[in-house]
Amino acid sequence: MSVQKPSIPKGTRDFGQKEMARRNYIFDTIRSVFATYGYSEIQTPAQENLSTLLGKYGEEGDKLLFRILNSGDAFGNVDFDKPLTPQVCEKGLRYDLTVPFARFVVQHQSEISLPFKRFQIQPVWRADRPQKGRYREFYQCDVDVIGSTSLLNELELVQMVDAVFGKLGVRVAVKINNRKVLTGFAEIAGAPDKVVDITVAIDKLEKIGLEKVKEEMAEKGIGEGGIAVIEEILSLEGDFAGKVEAMEALFKGGSASGIVSETGLKGLEELKELFGLIDVAGISAPVELDLSLARGLNYYTGAIFEVKALDWEIGSICGGGRYDNLTGIFGLPGLSGVGISFGADRIYDVLTGLELFPASLEQSTTLLFAVMGADELRYVIPVAAALRSKGISVEIYPEPSKLRKQFEYAQKRGIPFISINGSSEIETSSVNVKNLESGEQKSFNIADIDGIASFLK
Amino acid sequence: MSVQKPSIPKGTRDFGQKEMARRNYIFDTIRSVFATYGYSEIQTPAQENLSTLLGKYGEEGDKLLFRILNSGDAFGNVDFDKPLTPQVCEKGLRYDLTVPFARFVVQHQSEISLPFKRFQIQPVWRADRPQKGRYREFYQCDVDVIGSTSLLNELELVQMVDAVFGKLGVRVAVKINNRKVLTGFAEIAGAPDKVVDITVAIDKLEKIGLEKVKEEMAEKGIGEGGIAVIEEILSLEGDFAGKVEAMEALFKGGSASGIVSETGLKGLEELKELFGLIDVAGISAPVELDLSLARGLNYYTGAIFEVKALDWEIGSICGGGRYDNLTGIFGLPGLSGVGISFGADRIYDVLTGLELFPASLEQSTTLLFAVMGADELRYVIPVAAALRSKGISVEIYPEPSKLRKQFEYAQKRGIPFISINGSSEIETSSVNVKNLESGEQKSFNIADIDGIASFLK
Repeated sequence: MSVQKPSIPKGTRDFGQKEMARRNYIFDTIRSVFATYGYSEIQTPAQENLSTLLGKYGEEGDKLLFRILNSGDAFGNVDFDKPLTPQVCEKGLRYDLTVPFARFVVQHQSEISLPFKRFQIQPVWRADRPQKGRYREFYQCDVDVIGSTSLLNELELVQMVDAVFGKLGVRVAVKINNRKVLTGFAEIAGAPDKVVDITVAIDKLEKIGLEKVKEEMAEKGIGEGGIAVIEEILSLEGDFAGKVEAMEALFKGGSASGIVSETGLKGLEELKELFGLIDVAGISAPVELDLSLARGLNYYTGAIFEVKALDWEIGSICGGGRYDNLTGIFGLPGLSGVGISFGADRIYDVLTGLELFPASLEQSTTLLFAVMGADELRYVIPVAAALRSKGISVEIYPEPSKLRKQFEYAQKRGIPFISINGSSEIETSSVNVKNLESGEQKSFNIADIDGIASFLK
Repeated sequence: MSVQKPSIPKGTRDFGQKEMARRNYIFDTIRSVFATYGYSEIQTPAQENLSTLLGKYGEEGDKLLFRILNSGDAFGNVDFDKPLTPQVCEKGLRYDLTVPFARFVVQHQSEISLPFKRFQIQPVWRADRPQKGRYREFYQCDVDVIGSTSLLNELELVQMVDAVFGKLGVRVAVKINNRKVLTGFAEIAGAPDKVVDITVAIDKLEKIGLEKVKEEMAEKGIGEGGIAVIEEILSLEGDFAGKVEAMEALFKGGSASGIVSETGLKGLEELKELFGLIDVAGISAPVELDLSLARGLNYYTGAIFEVKALDWEIGSICGGGRYDNLTGIFGLPGLSGVGISFGADRIYDVLTGLELFPASLEQSTTLLFAVMGADELRYVIPVAAALRSKGISVEIYPEPSKLRKQFEYAQKRGIPFISINGSSEIETSSVNVKNLESGEQKSFNIADIDGIASFLK
């Protein structure tokens, strides 16, 4: 066979030992917090039937699905006059964790009890054009509760975000909006179909100024009366209570249009209740109302969340919201849910940038036994075994090589302690351990495993 | 959109919360042991270039690879007069962890230090016909060290097997063979190309008896002189030392053929050294020489391992061996390695069958706060938060529902403690906690978080 220059598909990554230690640190931290809130892990297969995936992510999403060629003779019974792809591919790779979660809930509805609190940490695949920070294989980390409309769920998501980033040492701000309030804006502007345009306008105010926003609104086909209402919305000021009070007045018919929005008022009720719960719970991170927040607008029906790192410039590192009828497409209507997704790659970049990964992650092995010959090897094997049974990570250099080479290995691998034992140690039943950083060296009786263990701390 | 009956591709599985808790218990146990031996985790992408995968698993393996349709217009430039699959698929799903590991070592050779000790726990995909215990997506769990020929590595693999199954509470036997000894048998039988046939014969002795084995050997084209040698091998008896001594005599020219096998003698040296190290290390599990052990024969060059559960009937739950030149195909010759693979699905079945999963895995949440109304909800939110910050898993029932429904939820989810608080608790600043199993009930001051926490233990 000819020699191949090895490579991996573009947009995919290998994770070496250091990266894995760091990634596991993030995932383990997230897992430990989820667990204290009674969320449990599930996993779904990488391959889903295309009938499950197609049509769920829009036309663009359908194009970005990785399709799997049918196994066996895929082209055996193909009609070449018809489109080939649907005839030769029945399965695709998981594109996100939300659709498989919906499929899971419906398929296993008899086994699960509602409200169903689950989290899921698995890779997803998208045939996107790879670029900096965008990969064709990446992990999503989703936490959702389905089957409960209580705003306690929204609170607990905020608490979990607060706890996760607290543990990771990242200062964050949580931004909250409510889809019903945005709908209310569009309703009182007399343009109920222009929710997105109006939200985008609110977002652009700081960047382009009031006049430009008004021009844009006119271009989008919003009439003079509507623009007057939007101006009222854009002029909202004050703290949370003040803004809510002013919006309440607008939704009750006090805007330029005089239109009443029950949906808007319902949204305000939800916001007030959620922020009230947040006050009670004692969240460390600042939580702000952000009326320009509109992620996944067509999808969310209540609360919308976004989390930003305060000390590192990057997009949102967490986001989510409440959705209705996620499982309707699979035949189980009427289930409301709320969830949030942690952006593992961005969180990784923030922790790297702020140097917040614990130094202990760099070190996988605590002690290296250098080996001078067969007798010395046999001498240290039981000592190493005893230390390992105490949970200490120990390596024995496998070949009796030059000491310099063994020291280099310890250095390269970041091993902080080395033990070199020769015939004199064997004669005196002792074990010699050296702290490579401080230079401190100590001799122990070979039976004094506890003594060695505490020197390694 | 029409309603779809949800399903997953055949041969794939969803893992619910109970299964995930059990699977994570297995993987975490394995991980914790690997870590104490200085092995670190890596991950490779699910998709590999087909040029990396094809030709590595034999003709059958090539057929069982899941191929991924090229993204974009896969059929746009296809020559329909040529085979289509290679033109429309450049990538495939990971088929095992060994080939990606070899590819990883070569691709990252400048970043890693030898000996390189890695483990990898990831799913692999094979388009096998699904059947009981055989899936199209399943996890492999491989631990290998590459770049060292020391038999200390073989010892450490046996130690890790011993430690993993000790922690899991599964009694196992470790069987060991050596490829060089098997080669030696074939050499002294004058049939160096019949290693597999001779090993199969040794394996069949108990089942079909000496005469049938001899008939089979004749059918396989082994001459009379060779069969006489095989008869000598089959009559080997005694303990480890006795067998080794007898084989030594055969390999030194003392067999019916008089042929000397240097390879056989080298294999015996390796076996003696490894078993000597095993004696020194103090392994709990019985470790036996098994001359019929031949897994992956064409692949292994030295030690061959297999692990069997002693108290549950199932195939091997672990296996591996030493290989040479794994990375040669990717342009890095001369690296010897040794590794072992843990069969996660079978280990799961053994632990289920022997009821060895800890009962604590059944319980994800320790305490449920039942909720009677909005005031009670606000009252318990900070208590729940304080308990969670101590690492205790706490849920608050999200809706003020009938108590019976909330009790049922606790029962279904296996939550052992419930806390029901009404206006009288709020007035007296107390929290009421009940152990649902023992019926014991206790009242705490709302500030006595430590008191509540210790009652929950």
